[in-house]
Amino acid sequence: MLSKNVSKYITALQIKKYRQENGAFLVEGAKSVIELLYSDFKIETIVTTPLFYEANTKILANQDFKIEYATADELSKVGSLQTNDSCIAIVKTKENSFVCASPQEFVLVLDDIRDPGNLGTIIRIADWYGIKKIICSETTTDWYNPKVISATKGSFTRVSGFYTDLKQYLSNITNTAVYGTFMSGQNVHEVTFGQSGYVVMGNESNGISAEVEAFVNQKITIPRFGQAESLNVGIASAIILDNLKRNT
Amino acid sequence: MLSKNVSKYITALQIKKYRQENGAFLVEGAKSVIELLYSDFKIETIVTTPLFYEANTKILANQDFKIEYATADELSKVGSLQTNDSCIAIVKTKENSFVCASPQEFVLVLDDIRDPGNLGTIIRIADWYGIKKIICSETTTDWYNPKVISATKGSFTRVSGFYTDLKQYLSNITNTAVYGTFMSGQNVHEVTFGQSGYVVMGNESNGISAEVEAFVNQKITIPRFGQAESLNVGIASAIILDNLKRNT
Repeated sequence: MLSKNVSKYITALQIKKYRQENGAFLVEGAKSVIELLYSDFKIETIVTTPLFYEANTKILANQDFKIEYATADELSKVGSLQTNDSCIAIVKTKENSFVCASPQEFVLVLDDIRDPGNLGTIIRIADWYGIKKIICSETTTDWYNPKVISATKGSFTRVSGFYTDLKQYLSNITNTAVYGTFMSGQNVHEVTFGQSGYVVMGNESNGISAEVEAFVNQKITIPRFGQAESLNVGIASAIILDNLKRNT
Repeated sequence: MLSKNVSKYITALQIKKYRQENGAFLVEGAKSVIELLYSDFKIETIVTTPLFYEANTKILANQDFKIEYATADELSKVGSLQTNDSCIAIVKTKENSFVCASPQEFVLVLDDIRDPGNLGTIIRIADWYGIKKIICSETTTDWYNPKVISATKGSFTRVSGFYTDLKQYLSNITNTAVYGTFMSGQNVHEVTFGQSGYVVMGNESNGISAEVEAFVNQKITIPRFGQAESLNVGIASAIILDNLKRNT
């Protein structure tokens, strides 16, 4: 039986304001929670069905977080997943620490990505392509939104996000390639990517903003062979990273 | 004021059984409906706000489909979009006609794609890369599901789908490359694609089924540089088509 306090806390953590006030967020479902348990995130509480606890006693017992029991019905009702028959973890958020591209490293820059599903997908793709850091504009949707965490399929444990004023951030970058996608850019199939730099992905409707465009020194484009008007930003990120990795 | 009959009909067409019984489906929202108006689909009725009608009189007037008026509230209530302040079209489905890859052409094959968002995304990507035909297993989600149509962003007007028993279909293919993604396949960055063939994409959880795998004669894989366990099938389709197009 899930306690009222924890139930209320989980409901609150679905809202950004309460995540920020409490410095905590939710990780839901067996797969994501298991990845979490092997990461360096600090867990406050795991709410689990007795069945999930039994099946995972080895990694759940004798840890320094609290365990609460709940039924699958309770988990589904209180959490953000449509159905959840295993667990929800309440986890400490990390500090918003400055990151930049070190030599031999590419970093993603997200200029106003609004859809949580897109952000989660981009984090997962970054993880696939070995990108460890993502710089987000302050208008980018919250990294710790349950829909973002869920869409990363566990990759949130391996990729760091840093929210900042992009204009200010990018104005401090010198002698580094800053790639961005524009209709008029160089065909990405013909770009020779260097060993490090920044790859900017723009807003779902408006692309890269004018104030960020000013810092892009390598305009690239994904060649189109048919007639679709555009590609989703997650798809575009994947194609650019695939080309970047093959060409470095 | 939307008539009760049309309102009921629109509600029914959100369900596969009634789409099949009536040979009709829904196209919702301004952008998709405008692409539809320039396509060869046969429209039964367009339900429109007076405002959308006025702004598009040139393409809406004097056509051989019916016009019904509705408020934005009515459109949002009766349709599948969260909000819709423009229009819904009721459209005749096309016949499930046999398609195959002609010389110089690549065709996608979908083995049990279950998620409507994924199918819609794949249709949009196919359109971007100039793929005009998609063969679907009979277990693949319905092409005419409103969520599929909406996710194609208008590309459903330019890409044809054909549902069939894949085992039977593929057993009739000889002397043609059939590509499929497997962990053990050749790195897609190093594959020399021919001029034509089939590219099989597998189910979201289980990949390509054993009975379809038997027909794959070119196993390929998307190289991983980081640690994410997998890529979404829409993302994987985009990366494979991007590699295919650059290498042909």
